Amino acid sequence: MHRTKVRVVEEALDANNTIAQANRADFDRAGVRVVNFMSAPGAGKTSLLEHVAADTPGVRIGVLEGDVQGSMDADRLAALHIPVTQLNTDPSFGGECHLDANMVRSALPELPLEELDLLVIENVGNLVCPAEFKVGEDARIMVSAITEGEEKPLKYPLMFRACELVLINKIDLLPHLDVSVERLEANVQAVHPGVPTMRVSARTGEGIDEWRGWLARMGAVPSGAGAGAEARV
Amino acid sequence: MHRTKVRVVEEALDANNTIAQANRADFDRAGVRVVNFMSAPGAGKTSLLEHVAADTPGVRIGVLEGDVQGSMDADRLAALHIPVTQLNTDPSFGGECHLDANMVRSALPELPLEELDLLVIENVGNLVCPAEFKVGEDARIMVSAITEGEEKPLKYPLMFRACELVLINKIDLLPHLDVSVERLEANVQAVHPGVPTMRVSARTGEGIDEWRGWLARMGAVPSGAGAGAEARV
Repeated sequence: MHRTKVRVVEEALDANNTIAQANRADFDRAGVRVVNFMSAPGAGKTSLLEHVAADTPGVRIGVLEGDVQGSMDADRLAALHIPVTQLNTDPSFGGECHLDANMVRSALPELPLEELDLLVIENVGNLVCPAEFKVGEDARIMVSAITEGEEKPLKYPLMFRACELVLINKIDLLPHLDVSVERLEANVQAVHPGVPTMRVSARTGEGIDEWRGWLARMGAVPSGAGAGAEARV
Repeated sequence: MHRTKVRVVEEALDANNTIAQANRADFDRAGVRVVNFMSAPGAGKTSLLEHVAADTPGVRIGVLEGDVQGSMDADRLAALHIPVTQLNTDPSFGGECHLDANMVRSALPELPLEELDLLVIENVGNLVCPAEFKVGEDARIMVSAITEGEEKPLKYPLMFRACELVLINKIDLLPHLDVSVERLEANVQAVHPGVPTMRVSARTGEGIDEWRGWLARMGAVPSGAGAGAEARV
């Protein structure tokens, strides 16, 4: 019984990877680099994107917005006059808790890839399943809000291992919390040694320039140019 | 293809419900009432439990602690000298993102049900999947941290509909946020009209007495006494 379940899951992940590679090939052909943007619910992904999406010089950014339901985040970003495409996960059972490669593939015809240098795919808020499903991205960014506490990397290690950059958001609230950002950063390094981290605040703008620089470097290198994202950051 | 997937999911949920009913029957026989305690990662479930688990007069509380990995939360609660049982979800693929009835059933032999009035099952932090899997509980409590923003009920409605009580935690941070607790409460009511909400802070203790009262009323009524949890709260 258990072995059967494992096999079914493995086959599902294999199928997902095949479709992810097809997505990646399409992104490469269009010269678009792709970031899979992940976090727990309410960590501030959309607020962070509002800072950079229309305001990263030399890089034309578009967003594929994944949500269980609704289009609130997509509406916020569309107000910035950047290309935004909404993707709702299957609503029949309360929705899927992650984006997979096939969902992203279904959205490709609606994405103006020829107008973009960088596509940010905002995943469903979840610290478990998104890490298991590649969607064709060049790199993954994980947002961990300082308000979520210090120990999230130890409790959800796969998520923190499956990324090339960790943003520690809501850093403006640090004086009001019984949380040590140094311990959070040490926990990140414990599960993913060497991964770069940045302290940011979507509220005050702290650290946003540094993150914008990372995105600009990512978007400035044509997709399919060879080097993995890890080599450049 | 899609229809097949829907059927498989429906069958899985049917099987889960059958096991959940068996769990419920066992809890009823032991006279234990059960709360399924759910939230996004880092919303403060364990910190809230630390306030009440050893300190709710007349109600002997035990905890079944669900985590993808590790036992940090269980260790914190065990320090209060209450019965705590750890349940880790399958680690082979980064772990399951929710508890299901079968996982809880596997833990039943380790639970000292005869010593308890109220068992709190702390679910994996996730705003999607836990809502779809009953585990044999009498009632569900959903914790929404004010730091997660106002719109979570609209983006994850099933989770807020599938509960008998909503705790709005981290209310002490309200002065430092661009968030309206009134709008959050209105959004909760929009997706689940009439559900009781309480503003609480695990940090300052605000609202904890009110929540303790709710738990005491829940734990004081023997399981299997007939009335649903909704009728008493």
